[in-house]
Amino acid sequence: MNFKYPNGKVYKPKVEHTWNRPKQVQYSNRGMTLEEDLNETNQYYRDKGIAVIHKKPTPVQIVSVDYPKRSAAVIKEAYFKQASTTDYNGVYNGKYIDFEAKETRSTTSFPLQNIHEHQVKHMEAVLKQNGICFLIIRFANANEIYFLEAEKLLHFWARKQNGGRKSISKAEIETYGYKIPLGYQPRIDYIKVIEHLYF
Amino acid sequence: MNFKYPNGKVYKPKVEHTWNRPKQVQYSNRGMTLEEDLNETNQYYRDKGIAVIHKKPTPVQIVSVDYPKRSAAVIKEAYFKQASTTDYNGVYNGKYIDFEAKETRSTTSFPLQNIHEHQVKHMEAVLKQNGICFLIIRFANANEIYFLEAEKLLHFWARKQNGGRKSISKAEIETYGYKIPLGYQPRIDYIKVIEHLYF
Repeated sequence: MNFKYPNGKVYKPKVEHTWNRPKQVQYSNRGMTLEEDLNETNQYYRDKGIAVIHKKPTPVQIVSVDYPKRSAAVIKEAYFKQASTTDYNGVYNGKYIDFEAKETRSTTSFPLQNIHEHQVKHMEAVLKQNGICFLIIRFANANEIYFLEAEKLLHFWARKQNGGRKSISKAEIETYGYKIPLGYQPRIDYIKVIEHLYF
Repeated sequence: MNFKYPNGKVYKPKVEHTWNRPKQVQYSNRGMTLEEDLNETNQYYRDKGIAVIHKKPTPVQIVSVDYPKRSAAVIKEAYFKQASTTDYNGVYNGKYIDFEAKETRSTTSFPLQNIHEHQVKHMEAVLKQNGICFLIIRFANANEIYFLEAEKLLHFWARKQNGGRKSISKAEIETYGYKIPLGYQPRIDYIKVIEHLYF
């Protein structure tokens, strides 16, 4: 039996807490999003005591809440807020780990409009604090995943700010990033790249 | 002019993004919650380049969303989820920082029911990764704030698990914790305690 994810919906609830998800063997990667793969990876890291890294909850501005008697509070009106940080953070071997994960359908480049200005500011601030900060990019069609250090991303961001191209070409990502082979457990072993680069 | 916070409501929307809040001098601490004080403190740390620490968004399970034409998506049904981690984390000087903040109206002790089992598990996992992990406790009536290392909290948690008292007495917190004097800017200078203990 395969665990089915909802699809065909405009809004897809994010799987933030995988700990209460049935642990089933998934032989195929088809249909798994980058977020799901990373959640499974982080769950694996936590289960094995390798690292403690979580996805942050989606920021929501709550406007109205109902308190029905004898049942849980129901949020009746709320809005999505823009995150002021990256989506994932945590600790590995005492070091602060911080990253954003993005997929693109483009086969030739990663459009920088996927990243928001305040996320770039956040990354700069994290680097100043000597945190380990990076971007995980998935090219959805090829199902290839790259690790790109925040320092490199900032370089391409600055190029755009200075009137240069609005994306990072795939060739550049291949040159300056690190390809993460898709695995079984963990699916996206980005800690291996961190070990290689920072330890 | 004083900045007013909503009150008298069952649900009080949490101020997660203080960056868009008018920066006004607040001469009085009356009415400020621990969370507001910590948000201002973290904002101060970020503004000054001292540390990058954020409160995580409140975790919400989204059930239904409306997409009105020409306006923002509206969440129509959602529920509060229990957080699987502590509320605050970030980086200081390369080190991973992780903490939970709680207030109590009790004048004599801190009831351990304020802390959830999964938060304790999270703290244990963070300590195993050599993260810096602690609890900030505010005794609301006296308006006294203490920094208690997670290691100490785990000790008192184990005592409770072994049939001992279900709270940490104020005397114990005074002995094993570190009092943080309330300041003007930053309001709750917990980095000073971190400097003292870990650097």
